[in-house]
Amino acid sequence: MVVRDGAQPRVAVVGTGLIGGSVLLRLHAAGWDVTGWDPDEATRRRARLAGVPTAERLADAVADRDLVFLGGPLPTLPATLVEVAAATGEDCLLTDVGSTKAELAALAAARGLTHRFVPGHPMAGTDRAGLVAASPELFAGAAWVLCPAPDGLTAFRRLAAVVTDVFAARVVPMAADRHDAVVALASHVPHLLAGALAGAAERSSLRDAVLTLAAGSFRDGTRVAGTPAGRTANMLRGNREQVLAALAEVTAVLDELAGALRTGDGELLTARYAEAAAARRALTGRPYREQLRSFPVGGRGDELAWLYGVGAAGGHLTGCWVDGAVVAYTAQLPQAD
Amino acid sequence: MVVRDGAQPRVAVVGTGLIGGSVLLRLHAAGWDVTGWDPDEATRRRARLAGVPTAERLADAVADRDLVFLGGPLPTLPATLVEVAAATGEDCLLTDVGSTKAELAALAAARGLTHRFVPGHPMAGTDRAGLVAASPELFAGAAWVLCPAPDGLTAFRRLAAVVTDVFAARVVPMAADRHDAVVALASHVPHLLAGALAGAAERSSLRDAVLTLAAGSFRDGTRVAGTPAGRTANMLRGNREQVLAALAEVTAVLDELAGALRTGDGELLTARYAEAAAARRALTGRPYREQLRSFPVGGRGDELAWLYGVGAAGGHLTGCWVDGAVVAYTAQLPQAD
Repeated sequence: MVVRDGAQPRVAVVGTGLIGGSVLLRLHAAGWDVTGWDPDEATRRRARLAGVPTAERLADAVADRDLVFLGGPLPTLPATLVEVAAATGEDCLLTDVGSTKAELAALAAARGLTHRFVPGHPMAGTDRAGLVAASPELFAGAAWVLCPAPDGLTAFRRLAAVVTDVFAARVVPMAADRHDAVVALASHVPHLLAGALAGAAERSSLRDAVLTLAAGSFRDGTRVAGTPAGRTANMLRGNREQVLAALAEVTAVLDELAGALRTGDGELLTARYAEAAAARRALTGRPYREQLRSFPVGGRGDELAWLYGVGAAGGHLTGCWVDGAVVAYTAQLPQAD
Repeated sequence: MVVRDGAQPRVAVVGTGLIGGSVLLRLHAAGWDVTGWDPDEATRRRARLAGVPTAERLADAVADRDLVFLGGPLPTLPATLVEVAAATGEDCLLTDVGSTKAELAALAAARGLTHRFVPGHPMAGTDRAGLVAASPELFAGAAWVLCPAPDGLTAFRRLAAVVTDVFAARVVPMAADRHDAVVALASHVPHLLAGALAGAAERSSLRDAVLTLAAGSFRDGTRVAGTPAGRTANMLRGNREQVLAALAEVTAVLDELAGALRTGDGELLTARYAEAAAARRALTGRPYREQLRSFPVGGRGDELAWLYGVGAAGGHLTGCWVDGAVVAYTAQLPQAD
């Protein structure tokens, strides 16, 4: 953890909508020295009314801070990163809370920021937007991806400790491009399918009857189609190539299912659904085992490979401590299903 | 309601798995004279152990009954209808609880059973199967489609009264082929999408990481992929043409979304998601108004057209009474959104 004269790090949150606002509220509730800032004046006023320190100008919010969380709409994050990096010192740790990571990671590399910027993605949300929907408990138990760079392990360790200790989130370490490929299938394509299903119902000549007979499958399958449209569009556009590739994988299986249905091949249909059910079982019922690992603070090759391995295996970190010359992690790793 | 010498009708339930078993448990809990039967000996034993009257032979279960519910796997229902119709008298009312309706309605017409067989579809369920998963409360508040035939209004009225009064379900009147087109979009295509998404995740080289980062959208969107595979396959095959037609409507919208994403057209993406969100708003927040309508018992043209209109408008019946020469309905109809 970033420690300044033995005290807690001083934190800023830039962009305090649903996600950034929840970060702000949690840190404030935990008694940390944290200041928020948002370009929207009404949002700043709302935060101040809630008793949360909020600066009038971005530069004032981040001045002299040890750690800055970057929030706000996804398309604004590159500019925010550049602006905040310029306004803060070399010792100030930066991270973001956007839903795609490769673009920011590449920007950080190009700007020489990988030693102090750790791309992040807390995987929590609601179908509402803005600080008014924010909650300090939003991230408890949620997956929070952090993307360590080879020269960013010190920054990663500090941030991992904050995320596990203060937010009670599960830290999933992952390379930035790997993250984008994974969330394409784990989040973005599901948004496409939900939009297609709800959109087709809205256009259908049977619309009103469809809504009345909407079974659990329809209600569940369209839920995220109710999230703010612009936010969904930004999320998909921010990960375009990976989303289109994952969509092709899903439509290939959909074509198989439709083909089996068209030829009336009940055995093939049943086999395909049995395969799908295996993913559901693993999703809801995987047992985990705890692992404790430590590395020399100075080394790095082993540590980064182990961290990436934890994420690839479907595991997560539950703690990170630096003690003298040793960094120790606790991890939960799924056992083979 | 079917009344024999002023008493409640005597009922049988043939096929007592999840749905039929829930019908049986509810009628028994309500104090009705009801007998179950299932081809599976273990299921019969389980029902008996639960204190629910169960016959050893189908013929004994349905003998002298006034109303018989037909359950069991979808592909078995045509044979069950023929067998039970032969084993019961002209005054015995029949209905089924299968998830598609046109095939049975056509069979009933061919066999001259439309005056006493009312195709039905209670739209409730769980991802479990069998009597062990059955619950007497399964249908409370659920939509329960009934398909009145032009010469089957007397039977329809009796059954509508039982379904609203005893099961506290919302009766949705609808022609059988219309029902199948509606559920293709409201239930069957969502099952296809869930199977494709979960199946693609199961096959993916990123499987374990995808499951760990599975957001609410993925969890919701794949939930029904965990239901018994054979049951899903039967449901889809029982409504093949309608499902393929509805799937084409959904993939057309999906292609539009993917096309807008491919060309980076954020405005089009946002517009399509705004359209989808309208369906979600209508799904969760439509206000209803009550309507009371009555018809002469002997007439029928107006009554059938009104009933079909209630279903097409997304409404449902909450009660049905025959008083002398008049039949009265209470209905809930959605107001324009």
